[in-house]
Order: sequence, then C-alpha cells, then structure tokens
Amino acid sequence: MKRTLGVCYYPEHWPEDMWARDAAQMVETGLSWVRIGEFAWSRMEPQPGQFDWGWLDRAIDVLGGAGLQVILGTPTATPPRWMADKHPDMFAFDDQGRPRGFGSRRHYCFSHDAYREESRRITRLMAERYGKNPHVAAWQTDNEYDCHDTAISYSPHARAAFQDWCAQRYQSTDALNRAWGNVFWSMDYDRFDQIELPNLTVTEPNPAHVLAFRRFSSDQVVRFNRVQCDEIRAYSAAPIIHNFMGRITAFDHYDVGADLDISSWDSYPMGFLLDRMGATDEEKARYLRQGDPDFQAFHHDLYRATSRGRWWIMEQQPGPVNWAPWNPAPLPGMPRLWAWEAFAHGAETVCYFRWRQAPFAQEQMHAGLLQPNSDPAPALDEAAQVAREMGQLGDVGTATARVALVFDYDSAYAWEAQPQGADFDYFQLVFDCYKALRRKGLSVDVVPKTVDAAAYGLVFAPGLLTVPDYRGAGHVVLGPRAGSKTEEFSIPDGGAPDIQGLDLHVPFVETLPPFAPIPVQGGGAIQKWRDQLEGAGAIFQTASGAAAVRQGNLTYLGGWPDELFWARIIDDVTALVDIETTDLPRDLRLRDTDTHRFYFNYGPHPVDFAGQTIDPAGVYWEPLK
Amino acid sequence: MKRTLGVCYYPEHWPEDMWARDAAQMVETGLSWVRIGEFAWSRMEPQPGQFDWGWLDRAIDVLGGAGLQVILGTPTATPPRWMADKHPDMFAFDDQGRPRGFGSRRHYCFSHDAYREESRRITRLMAERYGKNPHVAAWQTDNEYDCHDTAISYSPHARAAFQDWCAQRYQSTDALNRAWGNVFWSMDYDRFDQIELPNLTVTEPNPAHVLAFRRFSSDQVVRFNRVQCDEIRAYSAAPIIHNFMGRITAFDHYDVGADLDISSWDSYPMGFLLDRMGATDEEKARYLRQGDPDFQAFHHDLYRATSRGRWWIMEQQPGPVNWAPWNPAPLPGMPRLWAWEAFAHGAETVCYFRWRQAPFAQEQMHAGLLQPNSDPAPALDEAAQVAREMGQLGDVGTATARVALVFDYDSAYAWEAQPQGADFDYFQLVFDCYKALRRKGLSVDVVPKTVDAAAYGLVFAPGLLTVPDYRGAGHVVLGPRAGSKTEEFSIPDGGAPDIQGLDLHVPFVETLPPFAPIPVQGGGAIQKWRDQLEGAGAIFQTASGAAAVRQGNLTYLGGWPDELFWARIIDDVTALVDIETTDLPRDLRLRDTDTHRFYFNYGPHPVDFAGQTIDPAGVYWEPLK
Amino acid sequence: MKRTLGVCYYPEHWPEDMWARDAAQMVETGLSWVRIGEFAWSRMEPQPGQFDWGWLDRAIDVLGGAGLQVILGTPTATPPRWMADKHPDMFAFDDQGRPRGFGSRRHYCFSHDAYREESRRITRLMAERYGKNPHVAAWQTDNEYDCHDTAISYSPHARAAFQDWCAQRYQSTDALNRAWGNVFWSMDYDRFDQIELPNLTVTEPNPAHVLAFRRFSSDQVVRFNRVQCDEIRAYSAAPIIHNFMGRITAFDHYDVGADLDISSWDSYPMGFLLDRMGATDEEKARYLRQGDPDFQAFHHDLYRATSRGRWWIMEQQPGPVNWAPWNPAPLPGMPRLWAWEAFAHGAETVCYFRWRQAPFAQEQMHAGLLQPNSDPAPALDEAAQVAREMGQLGDVGTATARVALVFDYDSAYAWEAQPQGADFDYFQLVFDCYKALRRKGLSVDVVPKTVDAAAYGLVFAPGLLTVPDYRGAGHVVLGPRAGSKTEEFSIPDGGAPDIQGLDLHVPFVETLPPFAPIPVQGGGAIQKWRDQLEGAGAIFQTASGAAAVRQGNLTYLGGWPDELFWARIIDDVTALVDIETTDLPRDLRLRDTDTHRFYFNYGPHPVDFAGQTIDPAGVYWEPLK
Repeated sequence: MKRTLGVCYYPEHWPEDMWARDAAQMVETGLSWVRIGEFAWSRMEPQPGQFDWGWLDRAIDVLGGAGLQVILGTPTATPPRWMADKHPDMFAFDDQGRPRGFGSRRHYCFSHDAYREESRRITRLMAERYGKNPHVAAWQTDNEYDCHDTAISYSPHARAAFQDWCAQRYQSTDALNRAWGNVFWSMDYDRFDQIELPNLTVTEPNPAHVLAFRRFSSDQVVRFNRVQCDEIRAYSAAPIIHNFMGRITAFDHYDVGADLDISSWDSYPMGFLLDRMGATDEEKARYLRQGDPDFQAFHHDLYRATSRGRWWIMEQQPGPVNWAPWNPAPLPGMPRLWAWEAFAHGAETVCYFRWRQAPFAQEQMHAGLLQPNSDPAPALDEAAQVAREMGQLGDVGTATARVALVFDYDSAYAWEAQPQGADFDYFQLVFDCYKALRRKGLSVDVVPKTVDAAAYGLVFAPGLLTVPDYRGAGHVVLGPRAGSKTEEFSIPDGGAPDIQGLDLHVPFVETLPPFAPIPVQGGGAIQKWRDQLEGAGAIFQTASGAAAVRQGNLTYLGGWPDELFWARIIDDVTALVDIETTDLPRDLRLRDTDTHRFYFNYGPHPVDFAGQTIDPAGVYWEPLK
Repeated sequence: MKRTLGVCYYPEHWPEDMWARDAAQMVETGLSWVRIGEFAWSRMEPQPGQFDWGWLDRAIDVLGGAGLQVILGTPTATPPRWMADKHPDMFAFDDQGRPRGFGSRRHYCFSHDAYREESRRITRLMAERYGKNPHVAAWQTDNEYDCHDTAISYSPHARAAFQDWCAQRYQSTDALNRAWGNVFWSMDYDRFDQIELPNLTVTEPNPAHVLAFRRFSSDQVVRFNRVQCDEIRAYSAAPIIHNFMGRITAFDHYDVGADLDISSWDSYPMGFLLDRMGATDEEKARYLRQGDPDFQAFHHDLYRATSRGRWWIMEQQPGPVNWAPWNPAPLPGMPRLWAWEAFAHGAETVCYFRWRQAPFAQEQMHAGLLQPNSDPAPALDEAAQVAREMGQLGDVGTATARVALVFDYDSAYAWEAQPQGADFDYFQLVFDCYKALRRKGLSVDVVPKTVDAAAYGLVFAPGLLTVPDYRGAGHVVLGPRAGSKTEEFSIPDGGAPDIQGLDLHVPFVETLPPFAPIPVQGGGAIQKWRDQLEGAGAIFQTASGAAAVRQGNLTYLGGWPDELFWARIIDDVTALVDIETTDLPRDLRLRDTDTHRFYFNYGPHPVDFAGQTIDPAGVYWEPLK
Repeated sequence: MKRTLGVCYYPEHWPEDMWARDAAQMVETGLSWVRIGEFAWSRMEPQPGQFDWGWLDRAIDVLGGAGLQVILGTPTATPPRWMADKHPDMFAFDDQGRPRGFGSRRHYCFSHDAYREESRRITRLMAERYGKNPHVAAWQTDNEYDCHDTAISYSPHARAAFQDWCAQRYQSTDALNRAWGNVFWSMDYDRFDQIELPNLTVTEPNPAHVLAFRRFSSDQVVRFNRVQCDEIRAYSAAPIIHNFMGRITAFDHYDVGADLDISSWDSYPMGFLLDRMGATDEEKARYLRQGDPDFQAFHHDLYRATSRGRWWIMEQQPGPVNWAPWNPAPLPGMPRLWAWEAFAHGAETVCYFRWRQAPFAQEQMHAGLLQPNSDPAPALDEAAQVAREMGQLGDVGTATARVALVFDYDSAYAWEAQPQGADFDYFQLVFDCYKALRRKGLSVDVVPKTVDAAAYGLVFAPGLLTVPDYRGAGHVVLGPRAGSKTEEFSIPDGGAPDIQGLDLHVPFVETLPPFAPIPVQGGGAIQKWRDQLEGAGAIFQTASGAAAVRQGNLTYLGGWPDELFWARIIDDVTALVDIETTDLPRDLRLRDTDTHRFYFNYGPHPVDFAGQTIDPAGVYWEPLK
C-alpha cells in the first residue's frame, strides 16, 4: 500500500495571494494531503445564517488544483462568538460547577441538544456544498474530542441527559438503586430527576454512580460524532476521520472509531513526554528532544484497532510546541523518525502540523514546516526526505504482530472511579506492559477486550474490570484486579475474581506506597497493588504468597509488576507459547511489517545492533526473510 | 470490670434469611455487642412520614434473641434524598462558598434549624419505639461528627446563626468591635447582621473573628447532639454514645462528651498513619501494616477523659480500608493487638467494623470480619482469640497514670486561626510530647486544661492559648506560646505570657523553617517556634538565650522541642518529681492498669525486653506488684 | 541632602493619653516623620456622611506639636463596613469569578466608578481640612496598590470598563480582531460588549487578549491614584507619595509614579526572602535573618526611577512579621543596615513600620519599635543609632551609577501572558542580571526602557517585549526573547527579533526544564530559554550555536544565563566600555554615592575586604576620592 504525507493548513490566516505559492511548495516537498477548515466557522458563517463560502471554494480550488487532496474539517470545535449569544447555556461545566466560557476553543457541552443541532446544520451545509468536490478526498469531524478535558461536563444539560440515560439503562429507580447499592448510605432515589451528577458531594460519591456517568459521557461523544458522520455520508463517499489524542481515557475510542472510516491521532512526542505521568527526571532529560520511545508506538497500535485497521497521523509535531511545561526543539532527524515509525506501524498517511507557524494568538510559539516569515523551519527538509525515501522504498508492508495487548476504556473509567491506591492508573498499567513487551523486541497489536484471543498466540490483558471467556484461546495473561467487579461495580457474588477458567480466590487486596514494594523471589517486585492469591499453580512467589499463578491457558498476576518482574513474566510466557524475543538496548525499538523490520534509535547516542550502527534519531530497515 | 467485644452490622444490606446465621456466628466468635441502624434512614422512612419499622423490629429480635446486645444508631448522618427535596437549603457550604450536596453522607449543615428538627423527630420516633426494648442496650447519636470536614459550614444558615451567637456573646457591636480589635483595618460593625463568615476575604480575616467562628461551630455540634440525647433519655435508660474520630479539632469533644454517657472513637491505625501529618516516609514504611505506635494510645487516653472515664472503640479496623492514599493489609496479629491495647487503656468494649465486607457502594474495598461471600477474613480469628484470652485473663484493672497531658480544643482553634509559622500545629505539638512521654515508658492521662493539676505529680500542658492558675499543683510544664493571648485572641495587657506564678517576659517570638532549627546546648534543638525568654531560672540554653526556665512548680519551654530535647526535658522533670521512667526500644510501648502492665510490639521485628521476646504484633502482659 | 527617619503610627489604636508620650519618645529616638491615618476611615466617617475629625485634629496637633512632620494617608484601602452596604457590588472578583468580600482590607475593585467617587470624596474632605495644616508635610495615597493581588479584578464592573477601554484603543472590533489574530480559533468579536475577561476559558485565552487586559488593569490603578492626587493638589502643596511593594508586576509603577512627587516602598527583607520565588533552601537558611542581599537594593534602584529621583522607604521591617511562611527575628544590626543601605541608594527618608506592635487583629504578631506593652523592641535602639550616625556623617551624597538596567512592566505582562516555559519569569530574569552586576561591585540605575541610553556607558535590557532604537548609545545588552513580538503580541512581520541595529534572525526558540541546561563553551550555561541565533558576531558559543552575538553597540544573549555565564558576560562588556568591576565576596555588597562608598555585610560571618573586617550586619563607609 502506498503511504503518503500531508500537512495542516489555514488559508483563512493568510492573504489569498500566498495560497498558490504555498500549495506549490507543499507539492514540491512531496506532500499529498492538506487538511483545512476545522477552526474557520467564524469565516464560513460570520453572522448567524449569513455565509461566506467563497474563500473556502477558492482555497479548495487552489490546493486541489495544485494536485493536493483536501481533508475538510467541520468547524464545530470553535463555534463563533454569536453562537454563545444565541445559546448562552451551551457551555460545558467543570467539576467545580462553573461554565467554561468563550475565548479559546471546545467551549460546548456534548449534552446541549441545540448545539448538537447547530453542529448538524453546519456539517450538512458543508457536506452539501463540498460532498462531491473532487478535491475533497477526506473529512475530519470536529477536532480532538476531549482535548482540554472537555468530554466530561457537569452542566445542567448534562444532568438532564444523564437522568434520561439512567432511565433508559435501568428502567426503574428500584433497579438503579439495587445496581448501585444505594441502600448503603440511604442514597436511594425515588425518581430519576433526583439524580445529580457525581461532583461536589461531601465525600466521594458512589463509584457505581461515577462509572455510570463516565459511560454516559462517552456515549454523548459518540452521539455527537455520529450526527456529523451521518450528515457527511449522505452527501459524500470520501472517508471520514477524527483526530484523536494521546493518553485520553474520557470516552471509548472504539465506539467513536466504529462510526469512522479511519482513525487518526495527533502525535506530539516531546510535549507528551513532559506532560504525561510516570517519567522520571532522568528519563525526561534523556528523551527530552525525542519523546518517550514507546508512547507513540502504543498509540499507533491502539488507533490501528479503533477503526478496523485504517489509521493516520493527522497532526505530527514538527518542532517545538507551545503547550507543554517546557518546549524544547527536537533532535535533528526526529520529525523523520516519527513519520517512519508511524508507517512501520501501518499508518496510511502522516500529516505535519502545521504548514506555516502562525504569528498570532494562542499557538504562535508552535512550530510549523515554515517559519512565520515563510522561511523553511528545520522539519521541512525532513518531511521532504521522508517523501523521497518513501518513493525509493515502495511498499513497506502491513503491520503484523503475534502478541496482543488489551486496552479497555471501561476498565479505565472503573479504576479512575475507585483507584483504591493513589497511583493506581489503568493506562499506566497497560503502558508498563507495552513497554516491557517492546523491550523484548515484540511487535504488538493493541486490541479491545472483545478480541478473538485465539487469533493470537499470546494476549496480555492486565487490569480488566470484567474478564471475557478467554478459555481455549492462545495464552492469556490477566491480573491484577482483573474480574474483581461486576459490570455495575460491585463485588461478584462468589467473591473476586470472577474469571472463567480460573479456580482462584482473592480474600483481600492491598495497595502499596512507592516506598514499600514487595520483592518477588528470584528478582523484581510487586508495587502499587497486590492481590492475595488463593489457588493452585503458583509460578512466581513472594514471601507473603504467590505473585502469579497459571491454570490452563491463563496466567494471573497477583500484583502490578515492576520492570524486572515484567521482563521475567514475558520471558516465561513467550517461552511457553514459543514466541521468540529479542532483548533490545535501552534506546532502540523495532517494529515488523509483513515485509520489513524497522529499527528506531530514540537515544542520544549511536547504538550498535543487528550489525548496524544506528545514529541518534536514526531509522534502519531491512527486508524480512 | 468485664471487657467486651462487638461488631458493626447492616441488616438492611443483606437478605433477611442471613441474619440469624450471622447472629449465631457473632456469638460463636465471642462478640457481645452489635451496632446497627446508623445509615438506614431511607429504609426506616422511605417517604416523608411513611415508616417501615418492621425490618428493624425483626433485626433487633433476631440479634437480641441470639444473645447479642444492640447499639442502636440514629440515622441522621445520612438523610434520604427526599429530605433534600423538602429542605433544598439544608446543605453545609464549603469555604469556597459552594453547597456540599447529596450523593454520599453527612450532607447537612449543623445550623439548619429545620434539619435539626427532622433529626429530633426521627430520634424521638426511634426512642419511643425501641427505648424499652430489652435488646437495645446502648444508643449511638449520628455518626462521626466532622468526618469529611463537616462541622464547619459557610452556609447562609450558618451565617445567620453565627450572627445570633455573636449577639448573645458580645451583647453589642461596640463590645464585639473592641474584643476583636476591629478598629485595626476599619473593620468595625454597626449591626450584627453585617458580620460575614470569615471566608473569601481579600487577605486573612481577623484571627479573633476566626476564633469566634470556630467556637460557634463547635457549639452548633454540641447543640445538635444534645437534641438527640434529650430525646433518647426521655424514653430510654440505656447509655448514649457517640463515635468520635482521630485527630479532629473542629469541635470541642469535651463539650459533646459531657452530654454522653460513654465516649467512643473509630480507630483505623493504618489509614491514619498514611493520612495524618508528620510521619516521614521511613516511619510510614516501618509502621505501614501496624499504624503509628502512639496514635491509637493518644486517642484512647483522650476519649477516656471526654465522658468522665467511660469509653469504647466503636469501630476497630480489621483489615485494609478504602479511604487512605494507600491501603495495605495489617501485619497478622495487629487486629488482636489493637484490641488489647484499647483494653489496657481502659476501654469497656471494642467493636470491629464491620461484620461482613459490603459488595457495593463507597466502602466495598473496606475489609470486614467476613469477606463479601461470607468466608472468614483474617481478622475473624483474631477477634475470637481476643475473646478467648479475655475469658482467661479476667479483670485487667483500671487504667492509671501519674502523668497528665493537657489537650485543649480552644488552643487548637486559636493556633489554626493564626499559626504564625506554616507548620505550627497544636495537635502535633501535644502529640510530640505524648510520644516522648511514651518512649520513656510513662502511662499518661490526657486531660482538659481545667484538670485538677494537684491530682498528678506531673502535668504537661504545651501550647495553651490561656493558662489556668497551676500554682501549688504538682509540677507543670508549659510553653511555648503559652498564655500569649487573651480569650479573645489579643496580646495580654502586660505582654506575653500571662501566666500566674511565672515572672517571665517574651519580648518577641520567631518561627523557623524546617531547615533552620536552633541547637540546645547539651543536645537536641528547638524547631518551628521560639519564644525569646526574659526571666530567671534558665535550665536549658541556646546560643541566643534560655531554651527553658523553671520557677516554682512551673517549667516553661521557650520553643518547640525536637525528639532529643523532649527526652532531656522529661528526664529532668521526672527526676524532679521522682517519677520513674523506662527507656523503651523504638517499637515497644507499655501501658499500666492498676493490676497489670501490658507491652505492645508495633515493630516489624521481635523485641527483647523485660526478660521476654515479644514478636511483631505481639502483646505481653504481666501482673503489677 | 539631609536624610531623615520616621515611623508609622495609629493614634486610633491607643488611648489618647498615650499620644503625647509616644510623640516625645519618637523625637527622642531621632525620628522626624510620622505617618498616620491610612486605615482609619471607620473612625473618620463612622456612618455615611457623619464625620468625626476631632481625634485626627488632636492627633496631628500632638504629633506636630512635638516636632514631628506628619504624612497623612488617605484611608481608601479600608472602606468601612457601611460602604459595602451602600455599594454591594464594589468588590474585586478573583480569577475564579468570586467576589472578594469584606473582613480584611483592599476590598474594592479599581473599576467600580462609584467607589472611585467615594475615594475622591473622602480625599477631598481630608485635603480641604488638612491641606494647609502646617504639620501635614506629606500625603500618602491609599496603601500598597496590588497588595494581596488586588490590582487585577474579574468583576462585572471590570468587564464593562475593559470593553470601553478596548473600544477606545481599537476603535472597531475589526481592528481588535486583526490586532489579536482572533481569526485563529473563530474568536472574532462583532461588538465590544461581547468581550469577556480572559478567565474561566476552556483552555488558555489569546495572549494578546491577556496582554490587553493587563494593560487595562494597570491603567485602572493609574486612574484611581490620579483622582486622589488631583484632589490633594487642589488644596495642598505638600508632596504626594504612594507606598509601593516589592516584586509587584501587576501595574506599571512608572505610570503611577508619574503622578506622584515621591515614590516610596515597603521593605520587608526577611518576609520577602521566604515568600519570593527563586531562593534555594541553602540561600534561605544563610540569609534567614538578613534577607536577600540584592532584593532591597534592586527596589531602591527601581523606585528611585519611578518618580524622577525622589524616593523613600515608607515601611521598614523592624523585627519579625506575621505574614511570611515563617517569621524569624532579624540578626541584630539588620534594622540599622537596611536603613543605611536605603540612604546609600538615595532614599530621603526611612520610616519604620510600626511604632508599637498592635495587640489585636491581623498584625498582632508584627513587630514594632515598641512592644505592645510599650517596652522597647530591639529595633528601637538601632533606629536611634542610625539617627545619631546620620548626625555625625552629614550629607552622604547622591546615588550615582555608570550602569543601567531596564525594567519594563509591559514585558512582564507579556511574558506572564505567554511564558512558553514554566519558569520563564521576567522579574527573575532582570533580577538575575542585577545580582550578577552587584556581585561585580557595580552600582546600578534601574531605568524604564525609554531611558536615554547614551547617558550611560552600559545598559542591560534583558527580555524586552519590544526594543527601542538603542543604536548610537553606550553599549546595550539585549536578549533573550527580546523584540520577538509586536506591541500587540504577535510575531513581527519579518520574523523575530525586530531590533534596529541587529542583523539577526531566530528561526526557533526552545525552553528547557531545570535538569537540562546547555553548557556554554568556556564555562557557565544557558538555562530555561534558548534562542537559536542566526547572524554574525558570535562572542560565546554552545555546541548547538552561538550563545551571544555582538554587532555594533549591541550585544544579544541567545538564552537565559546562569550565574557563571552572567559573570563572563559582564566581564566581557565592562572591559569593552572600560568600566571597572570588583569581585565581591558572596555576602558583601557595595553602593556608591558621589561622595561615599558603602559596604554592607549580609552574611552570617565577618568579611575581610577593603582592608576592613566587616561584621555580620555590619555597615562600613569611606569617602570617595
């Protein structure tokens, strides 16, 4: 399959006489795609019902005429100021009960029906006008759902919608009271309209209440997005894409992805390194100009799963950004490496964000491929290099993996609702596992928990809220905390865990502060979370009981492994199912397609491996077999 | 006196056919008491004025019939949802001015008159119905006053009540203005209804204003509790108990305790260790599964004082809980040790919380004596062991002490209102002294400052706001900051300190950051707070003046001692009054009754002492004389 | 010129029969000035329109009669409680949208027109009554503008006033939209009344919006102060003073200072040390009882500039205060040293705060020259010593400097609006430069960026938002980030930096976390911020490009220097312009007037220098030439 490059562009920011020159230079750089439109509502509809499509018509003509394919974004992430006059109650509310007002972006509540209709209206108008335009080769819905924590709203509209959602789900307050255990503190409801959102309570709300609210909030995003997909599909055959973000667990990306043709995500490796939880200062210093060596790969593998295999990078960091605590410049070569890594993981297209650095407003310190004065920025040459190399290399094959790793949004909601230990974080648990697998040289598919486990030799599924029947599949690694609750966040009738195929009982669990890990015999330790295990089949031990047990095709981990214990677990189970591993140097990562093996050096020093010296920011590929 | 065990139970959470089996197993375990009812309002009165007493009648019958004595709790900590419909303004407000709404517990404002009448109504109905019931052998009022910081409310109802309270106390705004020094920043009031609560001011409010508000808030708790006591006493002769908490300074427990027959408290040693201020990571790691070696003892000694000697543990942690930052499992033996320690300090009864772990809602991760599936949890056997041992040992005597330690809520309010140094914390100051006394093997009585000091050979009274006339009593250790203010938080006319029997003057004080302690000659240091001392009788010195002086029967400390300086002070004064001390190993504590000496090993290793090897979590007792 | 001492006094706090004794003792101590009145509105006008001037008349008579000159303060920082009844909407709002109510001080919004008229009214009444009083020799307007962060208000009144301000500045919303780049996220406005204040947005607001709001907020302070100046000048020829604070960047002190006759500031060296950003624990411990060795001097030099050379200290810390995280006592000698340091920097008058420690209300732990019981506090003798020494020494000359350092409030607003790196702080950048200059023994003039640079041999102007034409002046040191924006916070058309006389281009910048500085070849490092430099004239190098370049009379720094790199830069440029430097020991500072050189030992140990041994807290002076 042919891989392509693209870029994000804002014709409304620049004099019209610059467009043609920009388009020509994009083509010359080797770019095929250009995304436009997603923040331009105030220029499409300057006053309610008064439209100005002329500039957009001409911009599409100029770009398309130069040979570029246009991704057209709906502008619903930035409703104009007049929209707030028209719908003064359209804003999301934060968990402190305050409206989040006009003056930046994403200032709407997903539960505001009238705004959803405004979103439908502008989407339909765009789809009608551009649905058959030959240059419009893809669509983007909205922009970065949940960016700035906007998927969860505590507005009056959200409350009313949540009450409806509860009525639909539970049918009666008696059923809801039983499901949530509201007898506990006399929390029973008599009517659905008594149900408040789970914020501003005296102490923590019922975790079942929180979990329901999180599921509701996800459903609201799905519904909002589906409206746009429906409108676009009525007029256009071009694929529909949304640009997701990194490390977002506020809604179910599989559910939104199911309505898309292609999932994409916005990859800012250096920003995420300094922003995200879990990196030490040593790691931050080492990867300051490269990003975490696994963070991008994890999301590549995740978003390959959310829309049935088709995925893009819609925004690729080209240089320093403006929004992390600090914003260093990338090591030369990284904008190239990041693109190649995406292709090795199966991306169809990588679009850099943005073409030219804006000289004004919030993102004026965010680099582009060009400087504000149109001089080239460092990444322009790297983009051109990737384009040339793609031409030389040809088809890089399809991403392939024998190991699967389950990522489940429902589990993330559940454990955020009741972490039990201050640092119990589902994303981190899964990501720790992913890192450990990658350090062993394994290519991984991230999958939903409904995966056909038999399709893989080996499936890792740490920390699942509820566990499907994985009997008879390949080998599956479960735990800790797995199957310890019902779908409604209560303890299963027979006690935890409730896992078919495991004769195992956990009489109690404990959570552990960072200074009190529990050593595993032979090396490594359990940290953060420990299940007390009662059952046969211990394969690792601590002084206070089994650290892991195996029964049939299931391995259950009795705690959160540290790095060394993860390595031992992986060595153990891969040997069992006869999957070969490769111990990689700290900074090196590899990824296989069905035709090639790619190596990426994320470190600050050259790495000798596989008979090659791979420079910092270096990419090396070799044909497989 | 016979000591007894009990447990907390929630018949409304379980099918009625389980009750008899549960009751039988409680008795078989050796438990005598069962507390019920305190969160069940929505099941007693499902709709306003519609009652369902049947289940409660039957539960009491089943439990009592099995031989258990029932402690019946009023359910006023959890008003049902319909109550919020009836009284939408019943909620407490936080210091940010927001109502603290329905959805957990303790969602009421102590100053809401109509809710207090609802509380009176349900209490009277229960007292009428169960006051003569032979199985109801004790009452509990409400549940854990101030839990989740609920004693202090900034609601409009609180404001109005505070204005009335001020009018009662000061009689005229002129008097109030003078008492508070409102001339200072033109803060004078003309009318009582101009007085706002001391939150959301531009910078800090007048500390005299804050102190008055704290006293008012305490009085509101007292009044709320007294209403319930009065109603119960009208119908029942059974003792009335409230279950206090650990490290709470939001209201005066002596004042509430005066209306009770028995004080009790809810003891969660491991939760408190990770939650409470002041422990280092090293200490947290060492005592992770045991709790702080002095925290429980301090509260035992405190609550022995608040209701004239009679006290219980109403809730004893049996295993991991759900609410601390991390929730480890106890070292095997600790649930037994904690019970014995309570008995050694004079507890009549220790009730474990709870009988069976709930499978739903907020506390589903909180251990019980049984697992949710009714399998025994580890603490069940330990409770049974305590019951057997109590049978063997017989009367363990009355707690007795020759050393008293004053704990004064008014001083806590005052120094919280104006700490002067970021880490000046009255509880911590008293607790540091308590720890130092215990490390010297001393049994301590915690007492109010109105104590008859002559009844003790030695009284420690650090940090008192105002100092009573202690002349002619045993030896009394005062300071730092003692007597430095009047009752209305101003500096005494003659300067600080205002202490009868001390010819001492403090021209200035200073507070010290953690990295700048002041060494005491001969060992130890002053930290956090230093009084410059002018007066005769120096007994310890720093380079900048006396660290402590002695005049007559009074010793005054010119600063907050560190651990070593506390030890030297205690050696000095105990020698003076001829009280013998015993330097204990770090992890060992002892406590005397008039018949026995008890040893408790809080450490992770065996301790050799008194000719014994005491295991971790071990208890050793020997007859006295 | 004769230097004088004074003190702050509150006759309304003390019985009238104490006034005469106090006045006599002030004179005896050698004090010439007494400030009164600034918090006494409730005693001047106890009820709206009902006045009580008698006590103030008598107080001025008694103080003036004793030979003291009175500074009379307007009481507008503490409007009485009845004012809040009259104008319930007069309060400033915090950035969370909450009114900041009555109960402390500074509870007004600068944009509340009716309160500004109340302020005019009381000022006029005072000026009418006391304008010709022979004892009233100076005036103070209000008290400490922006203390407790009160200059910036998010109230409805502020919003309306900001909309007007925008209309005045931009004339049309089209012009405003273009100036701010509102097209960026469809943020265009159609009407000025649509413009909200830049708080409570979903994510960060437009930095151009924030910058405009900051300029507006500053203008509101200027307008408020000007009203008082105008009223006073109509009735009195005495100089008008305001007492500024340390490290305040919320308004333009040059603009307020332009309306004053004398700038003054309130100097609390020890409070500021523990409060202010940037000191390590080691530095805090070393200077705990002295204050930062440069912080006072910087503000002396700054406030010498804000009112055309005339400046005072209106409040000088005499002992421990009440408002820092910790409040130690000064090293004996410091209250003297601080006064002499102010005189060496050109202060006309130093007033200690306060005469007698108040026994009540918020500041009762704030030391005075007397204790609350009228005993002398330690600083009284030091004040008397300064008075004697002034008599002996005579004229100490005029402060003089060959080196200027630009401090520009507009740049502070801009970089606070968009710091790009978490620790990019304009004040700290300028202060780091100041410290480095002082360690080289240089006397410095702080100046606005409109300074006539040719009047100095050497000007440092780090971090300016926009850069004036400095060509042809002495040598000027610019950068980093200098000239990188237009006045409206966008990137200059030709790219950054836009600096006349520099042929330099910065293709990108980066910000650096504390653990990732970039070494400069030969010693030192760049930290926090780095400009990538393209242009001729490199004079310092890093591995990734020039660290500084020189072209003509301009030196441009390509990053934020650490201490060693600052020293190398200063050595380099002082050699160039032939200014002699003196490497001073760590704790020693010097300051020249045209007649004397003064040395100050801020350290805890004696320092040998210039043939002298200077004790801790020691001051040494020698005639120049």
